[in-house]
Amino acid sequence: MDNDIWLFIGIGCGLASIAAALFYYRWVSRQDPGSEKAVQIASWIKDGASTYLKKLYTALIAVAIVLVVVLGFVFSGDPSRPLHGVYTAIAFGFGALCSALAGWLGMSIAVKANVRTATACGRSLGQGFNVAFKAGSVMGLVMVGVAVFGMSLIYLIFHDTEIVLGFSFGASSLALLAKAGGGIYTKTADIAADLTGKVELGIPEDDPRNPAVIADNVGDNVGDVAGMGADIFDSYVAATVAAMLLGSSFAATIGVQYIVLPLILCIVGIVSSLVGLQFVRVGPEGKPGKALNFGTVLSCVIFGVLSAVLFGIVNLLTGKTVFSWGILISTLSGLVIGVLIGFTTDYFTNDEFRPVRHVAEISASGTGLTIITGFSYGLVSMVPAIIGIVFATLTSYFSAQAFGLPGIYGVGVAAVGMLSLTGIVVSNDAYGPIVDNAKGIAEMSGMSHKVVDAADVLDSAGNTAKAITKGFSISAAALTVLAMYAAYSEVIVKYSGGSFIMNLQDPIVLGGIFLGCLIPPLFSALTMLAVTRNAFTMIEEIRRQFKARPGILAGTELPDYSRCVGIASSGALRALIVPALLAILSPLLVGFIMGPTALGGFLGGSIFTGVVFALLMSNAGGLWDNAKKYIESGNCGGPGSEAHKAAVIGDTVGDPFKDTAGPSLNTLITVMSLVSSLFAPLIAQYHLF
Amino acid sequence: MDNDIWLFIGIGCGLASIAAALFYYRWVSRQDPGSEKAVQIASWIKDGASTYLKKLYTALIAVAIVLVVVLGFVFSGDPSRPLHGVYTAIAFGFGALCSALAGWLGMSIAVKANVRTATACGRSLGQGFNVAFKAGSVMGLVMVGVAVFGMSLIYLIFHDTEIVLGFSFGASSLALLAKAGGGIYTKTADIAADLTGKVELGIPEDDPRNPAVIADNVGDNVGDVAGMGADIFDSYVAATVAAMLLGSSFAATIGVQYIVLPLILCIVGIVSSLVGLQFVRVGPEGKPGKALNFGTVLSCVIFGVLSAVLFGIVNLLTGKTVFSWGILISTLSGLVIGVLIGFTTDYFTNDEFRPVRHVAEISASGTGLTIITGFSYGLVSMVPAIIGIVFATLTSYFSAQAFGLPGIYGVGVAAVGMLSLTGIVVSNDAYGPIVDNAKGIAEMSGMSHKVVDAADVLDSAGNTAKAITKGFSISAAALTVLAMYAAYSEVIVKYSGGSFIMNLQDPIVLGGIFLGCLIPPLFSALTMLAVTRNAFTMIEEIRRQFKARPGILAGTELPDYSRCVGIASSGALRALIVPALLAILSPLLVGFIMGPTALGGFLGGSIFTGVVFALLMSNAGGLWDNAKKYIESGNCGGPGSEAHKAAVIGDTVGDPFKDTAGPSLNTLITVMSLVSSLFAPLIAQYHLF
Repeated sequence: MDNDIWLFIGIGCGLASIAAALFYYRWVSRQDPGSEKAVQIASWIKDGASTYLKKLYTALIAVAIVLVVVLGFVFSGDPSRPLHGVYTAIAFGFGALCSALAGWLGMSIAVKANVRTATACGRSLGQGFNVAFKAGSVMGLVMVGVAVFGMSLIYLIFHDTEIVLGFSFGASSLALLAKAGGGIYTKTADIAADLTGKVELGIPEDDPRNPAVIADNVGDNVGDVAGMGADIFDSYVAATVAAMLLGSSFAATIGVQYIVLPLILCIVGIVSSLVGLQFVRVGPEGKPGKALNFGTVLSCVIFGVLSAVLFGIVNLLTGKTVFSWGILISTLSGLVIGVLIGFTTDYFTNDEFRPVRHVAEISASGTGLTIITGFSYGLVSMVPAIIGIVFATLTSYFSAQAFGLPGIYGVGVAAVGMLSLTGIVVSNDAYGPIVDNAKGIAEMSGMSHKVVDAADVLDSAGNTAKAITKGFSISAAALTVLAMYAAYSEVIVKYSGGSFIMNLQDPIVLGGIFLGCLIPPLFSALTMLAVTRNAFTMIEEIRRQFKARPGILAGTELPDYSRCVGIASSGALRALIVPALLAILSPLLVGFIMGPTALGGFLGGSIFTGVVFALLMSNAGGLWDNAKKYIESGNCGGPGSEAHKAAVIGDTVGDPFKDTAGPSLNTLITVMSLVSSLFAPLIAQYHLF
Repeated sequence: MDNDIWLFIGIGCGLASIAAALFYYRWVSRQDPGSEKAVQIASWIKDGASTYLKKLYTALIAVAIVLVVVLGFVFSGDPSRPLHGVYTAIAFGFGALCSALAGWLGMSIAVKANVRTATACGRSLGQGFNVAFKAGSVMGLVMVGVAVFGMSLIYLIFHDTEIVLGFSFGASSLALLAKAGGGIYTKTADIAADLTGKVELGIPEDDPRNPAVIADNVGDNVGDVAGMGADIFDSYVAATVAAMLLGSSFAATIGVQYIVLPLILCIVGIVSSLVGLQFVRVGPEGKPGKALNFGTVLSCVIFGVLSAVLFGIVNLLTGKTVFSWGILISTLSGLVIGVLIGFTTDYFTNDEFRPVRHVAEISASGTGLTIITGFSYGLVSMVPAIIGIVFATLTSYFSAQAFGLPGIYGVGVAAVGMLSLTGIVVSNDAYGPIVDNAKGIAEMSGMSHKVVDAADVLDSAGNTAKAITKGFSISAAALTVLAMYAAYSEVIVKYSGGSFIMNLQDPIVLGGIFLGCLIPPLFSALTMLAVTRNAFTMIEEIRRQFKARPGILAGTELPDYSRCVGIASSGALRALIVPALLAILSPLLVGFIMGPTALGGFLGGSIFTGVVFALLMSNAGGLWDNAKKYIESGNCGGPGSEAHKAAVIGDTVGDPFKDTAGPSLNTLITVMSLVSSLFAPLIAQYHLF
């Protein structure tokens, strides 16, 4: 069977997914936006988001142009492939464009859906859920659609996986900036709003008197929707490309069909997600959390059945083993373990279980204990995820090997398997910030208690979905980067011509690992320090407004929302420079100075601490958030108690953990491994030691 | 030159060091203990400490007996060495005994010195300093004395480095339990005392009305003095033994003198420390911090000169290169980089520099920012230490290699070099808790403001010395464990008969690394959760006492101190069981199930995250502590301000970071690598996969 057929199917399937997304987009846009006041508030949020996105994309275009030129120049040095630089640069630009498009579309539906969800909640819980989830699906579908379309097209044109790598690098570079920038933005606003509003003045969250309230709501969109969207987009692409690269390395021995197999798995995933999405429904008294989880599990089952059928049909039609059953086992083991990791991680962040309740209870004895206990549970929460990663790695490796294929290719497709359901996973995830925003708008525009309560029920379901997605995406990123790591080695072997062993006893490798271990913590620190720095500036501004115009607090005049939006926007962009340089330059410095084995160690080190800190920060943050919500719903003394005050501080600490530093780490390690693989041909030839 | 001569010199030098310690011990004991009230309070502390130590040592003796029997049994299986099991067991027991002895002696002088320091402060700052520092020297000298005496004796008797490994394992096992137990004890009491006293009731620290106050002061002794003592004792021994093991592996090619060279460096270190100690003096208006640092730097210089002279004389007398100059470079590079790491780490925890001040300033805007900012600086603080570790590894490796010796042996002696000045480093370190206690006693017994102020000046110098020691000891532990790691590989090669490569691309190795990465965070979480659990129990007890007997708060009746002491003691011991099993059993499980390469990866993983978390926790904790002290000395609003409240919570979070979890991690990774090396001969032969 010719590979190109699959690429055409990929292009078609990608376009179909985008079409489905546009259909939902129109459906959501046609829903009733509600009262004038609600529409007014929503338009503030929309304008704030546009302001930031315009600034962000202007900056990103500049960065992308620089990188396009650099790549075009650097990769044109090989006389046997004179146009390689131009192609790589084109692929990079296209990848960046696709990533930006997915982020922008998701964002634009999110700021429409928030007010419509709030209004729909006035009719019924089920209708509110439906609007939010459909809007989330726009994000999910457009993302997988654009990704599969882009990768298929690029590979169809160039038939060179190294060029597809450029596409992936483009997507990831943009994602890193969008994610980290959005993460800094959202938590700057959130913390400043909380500390001045809830803590200093005792006014409720989302109170329109707070000058930071619009910035806070904008932040939910730019950080959680656009940022998270860009992030999963990049993992999805990177996982697929890593497996394609490995397939290409081994193509001579195992057959060219394994180059496109990762794309085929993506196609099956899109179909499964599209089917699964139809079954996510909530009745008038239904449980939104269960509905979301049901959709995910159902899609998994469909994926399993469809891929088995596909493998069977292809093998039957061609009369030979085109696709090895070992690879199916690898893929499915990745998927199943991914889901299991997601659900076990939920134990640490769901208020039905001991960790959240224990932190809520101990909060009455002081804030110090809230922090220490939550942090400790965050550390423990790594256990299931890391054991799962090890298990998935070994299972997929040895399954592939048992069927005579290279084990590492099995690891690569396991990562693709984990991410194959990105369509529905992102839908669940994007739902979260939309209902969070809907709740905010309902409160700010003075909708009835019934509406706010309904929005609240939807919101708490969003938190669990979000926690599951994070556990899931971190594990997938780990496997992806392991596959990319192997791809890196293959490239080094190919271009250096010798064997390539990264021996743990080699001091150069160890040195590389130790330096690599530094990068994720350092990156986290830089982004979090940016948050506190910017929040500090914004707090000063809020206090200034309250002091200069007492009418704001009395509720007789409107605060100047745009100044806070401006502080968050420009602060976030400025704060991105150093972390971005760290991500892109540090692997190049290590590679060109200390050599390819040191760079191998360096990547390894960054994966190890990257996974550890990503899990710690995401889970501890989620736990504190839910402990606070648990108390707010009347437990352990309820709102206003000492326990509540302590829990609010816990949540403040958790905010940059879970929404700024933690989730950027995935993208960080992906970008680092992409840079290394992309530059591996040069590093293999030119290095100081 | 016969090796045995050096062993006799080692025994002599060890005994001399112990004799010097006893001399200082007598000197301190003869100082004026002061007023009756002060003596009374000191006796409560002493009794509390004895209660805990008795319980601890009873438990430890039981553990040690079990391990002696197990080791004796397990290692008796080899018919070619029928008595190997008995010898290993004897060495293990002797190591445990030496470690306990060092801890007990240090503790016993500390509880004498605290009240005497307070009383001496009444005469002058210099005299107070002198008493505290002399008492600290007892600890430092007895530790290096016992260690060098023990190792020399064991090696003289058995002439087998594997038996000396048993000695080291005994010392480390005991150290792990003493350190983690003491760390849990001290922070249980500290947090409970702070949260009820300072936060809930607004009474000052060390107020005798607080039922937890004696437990808190006991904690400073059992955690900081005995625990830290046992900890550095074990690093010191492990570094020396690791280098001896490597020397023994390579003896056939490089000569037997390199087996005892690490011991010789220890001897030079003892002499240098003894000389350096004499120059640590403070005039009436002097700066105690400078005096401490001067002593350390001076000892370094003496060490450098003495070792160069020694190498020169031996080579000259024998007329050949007995000791390679490359090894001298390795040793000194370890020492110098160790000192540099210590001083750069100081930047992050000293209130003269930006990080502490920034955290203090931002505290006025809310506790959340205090935590996030401090944590972020803690992450950044890894940079100099890890770059230093990489630098020391590469320099020492390639220096040795350039002179034709195995590079890894150079790394081993670099670790010995870093720790060679343990005598004076521990003296500086033990000084800290003694003056802290002295301050407590001065406050509790109502001494004059002048005395309290003098004790305060001494105390703040202690904090910096402590921070430097920690940066220093973590880096040394990292190098030690790297050397031990190499020793492990050599043993595996020797007993499996084949080559042994831990390739980072091997999924078994990667799986081992990921699992290894889990252990340090998990261990930290278990000990910190124990702290919050026990503190919670103690807080309930304190509240109960205040409620049942209102006279306590009025100051008319004494609280029941012993109940709090009891809660801290038994809670700490119970909490040790799971972490101890984790440390000893997890390497064995991985080794016997997944095999020697997986165990190699596992050890690697535990080193990577062990170093990262140890640095993060120690430095963030130290930073919060000093930010609080900075505010208390009148900056950023001073005591009682919002900033101060936030800083107190930061300190509460930092307490278990810096005194429970952080410093135990050194010992944890040492114990794990010792278990692995000890069992390596068996694992090489018997493993499931």
